[in-house]
Amino acid sequence: MTIETSTVSKPSRVADVDEAISSEELQLAARNHGLPLEALRFDITPPGLHYLLTHYDIPVVDPKAFRLVVDGLVDTPLSLDIDAVFDRPRVSKVVTMECAGNGRARLLPRPVSQPWLVEAVGTAEWTGTPLAPLLRDAGVAGDAVDVVFTGADHGIERGVEQNYQRSLSVPDAMRDDVLLVYEMNGAQLPPQHGYPLRLLVPGWYGMASVKWLTRISAVAEPFEGYQMRAYRVRQATEDPGVPLTLIEPRALLVPPGFPDYMSRARILHAGPNTVEGRAWSGWAPVSAVDVSIDGGETWAPARLEPAPHRWGWSRWTWTWEAHVGSYLLSARARDGSGRSQPVDQPWNRGGYANNLVQQVPVAVIT
Amino acid sequence: MTIETSTVSKPSRVADVDEAISSEELQLAARNHGLPLEALRFDITPPGLHYLLTHYDIPVVDPKAFRLVVDGLVDTPLSLDIDAVFDRPRVSKVVTMECAGNGRARLLPRPVSQPWLVEAVGTAEWTGTPLAPLLRDAGVAGDAVDVVFTGADHGIERGVEQNYQRSLSVPDAMRDDVLLVYEMNGAQLPPQHGYPLRLLVPGWYGMASVKWLTRISAVAEPFEGYQMRAYRVRQATEDPGVPLTLIEPRALLVPPGFPDYMSRARILHAGPNTVEGRAWSGWAPVSAVDVSIDGGETWAPARLEPAPHRWGWSRWTWTWEAHVGSYLLSARARDGSGRSQPVDQPWNRGGYANNLVQQVPVAVIT
Repeated sequence: MTIETSTVSKPSRVADVDEAISSEELQLAARNHGLPLEALRFDITPPGLHYLLTHYDIPVVDPKAFRLVVDGLVDTPLSLDIDAVFDRPRVSKVVTMECAGNGRARLLPRPVSQPWLVEAVGTAEWTGTPLAPLLRDAGVAGDAVDVVFTGADHGIERGVEQNYQRSLSVPDAMRDDVLLVYEMNGAQLPPQHGYPLRLLVPGWYGMASVKWLTRISAVAEPFEGYQMRAYRVRQATEDPGVPLTLIEPRALLVPPGFPDYMSRARILHAGPNTVEGRAWSGWAPVSAVDVSIDGGETWAPARLEPAPHRWGWSRWTWTWEAHVGSYLLSARARDGSGRSQPVDQPWNRGGYANNLVQQVPVAVIT
Repeated sequence: MTIETSTVSKPSRVADVDEAISSEELQLAARNHGLPLEALRFDITPPGLHYLLTHYDIPVVDPKAFRLVVDGLVDTPLSLDIDAVFDRPRVSKVVTMECAGNGRARLLPRPVSQPWLVEAVGTAEWTGTPLAPLLRDAGVAGDAVDVVFTGADHGIERGVEQNYQRSLSVPDAMRDDVLLVYEMNGAQLPPQHGYPLRLLVPGWYGMASVKWLTRISAVAEPFEGYQMRAYRVRQATEDPGVPLTLIEPRALLVPPGFPDYMSRARILHAGPNTVEGRAWSGWAPVSAVDVSIDGGETWAPARLEPAPHRWGWSRWTWTWEAHVGSYLLSARARDGSGRSQPVDQPWNRGGYANNLVQQVPVAVIT
């Protein structure tokens, strides 16, 4: 190449401590979007409000030309058109999905990438067919260790040209609840969520659920593609780091009252008020949610409703007798594995899994 | 009130020339979202990709309790439930809608508000019932000058607590193509687009198409509510300014090749390439689109397809024999009224109607 792609694709970096959001981060924020927090009221996130992160472009996939290829270390390589996928057993699952980078823009110093605050989450009813029986039909060889999933989305990232690719270990890929998905909330999968077919790995951060899926390959060595190296919790670039897998616990509250357009600060009239929100964890069901109105000085237990679906969020409520004054509202989730949300930021180089508690300023007026 | 709402709701401001995006602007960018530019390929923008700007919260409207009230200077005040709206004559229209603030974040200095770059646009098929016959049924009095539309969305903005409200003059409200809309792209209006009922004013910037519509009132004096004062092109806060109405012409191109994740710069392999995009104007049909690959030094005419709908965008294409090198691609629309996109920024205090030509850096490699 005469033009060095390095001139347009730079290494990752961490912002200076006093550095505001860059024009590059703004470009990502204008394309991608989070869940407006008042939409936490919906059990199932309506189409268009679910968080969305697209690494490259939304690809145009012709459903007639589409083939899902299953190959590599398998006895019987497969090539399925979309009707052959539809003809397989059909199941639906309600799953809460969260971006591994959620909370990144609240870290100090801030890793420079998609600048999520706390809103990169959503819950959908996904419909498709289980992956494991398809892998059994193909016959994954005994010496296969990983299954690699390739999307149709193509781009360059930190200097590496690639189609988006992620792997699961063979045991993870054979989990009963991993699906190949072609519907979202009862309608055809939207282009931006992976049309015509995507992977869904319940309980894991969103990076595992490869969109625009075209190829599934069983391989003999641990897959070390770009996205496997990128999505790791590390303190410095040269650390091997720990791969991101299951979603850390988080509670979010529906900001009470009404907002100021620009500051998004909340104004609430004094009196009894039901604070409500959602909580979720990929590690184990949420076991408790606590609420604070004083920025985390003191906490009170919220009423936690049983989660209606294993991989979906739980609703919680808390009755607040709100008196005139200024407050900082937070919610904090714990799960059955003993994990809970930190009160100090869990800083890491990529800005992943920052489940530091949310803070919502509220001015209570008469 | 004991708590001054002025502590959370500040006057508008313009950023310092060297001021990067603030955390407040980022909060808005994380909630609202533009059209990912590759989605300009779709004639009709798929649900969830259409631009979205919500001033306050998406309100929860109970469709059973919903009433559309028509009152003020009318002979027969009306109160319609949603079924009564559905029972009226049904029409569908394909309309391109753009936010008046589109382009704001490219202005120097930058007015501080929702920081759109160029992507706050979308084209949908909207279905509903014409407004004019409803106003005729109510009998708008001869001394009415404006019709005020009130939404259910409530908040505070620059110190003014309000439900979102905009007006049209009686002649504008009586235009045949102004609709009360309850479906988008053949499905129930999504919550974020105004469920269960919104106004649609084809050709005007989006601020006129009041979402979550609950009341239509005919009034004897020109309506001077907050949103009528805010959406004006002015050079200084104290200027009376010019109200925003029809959409200025704009062309956008689908960025060619593939992107770098972070910089969104494009990489394209050398060879023949069809550059495509869309162009629109509320003032008159688009009459020509020109394309530049050298940042606006030279321009070549694109092939403009006839617009399939009066208020929808036009597709255009341009064949580029791309040689290895670095380029800056732009497109520029003219319309039948003689308006065209400026090459110098049309700066104004609110950051409105900035239709300065788009610039897309492209590195062509072998």
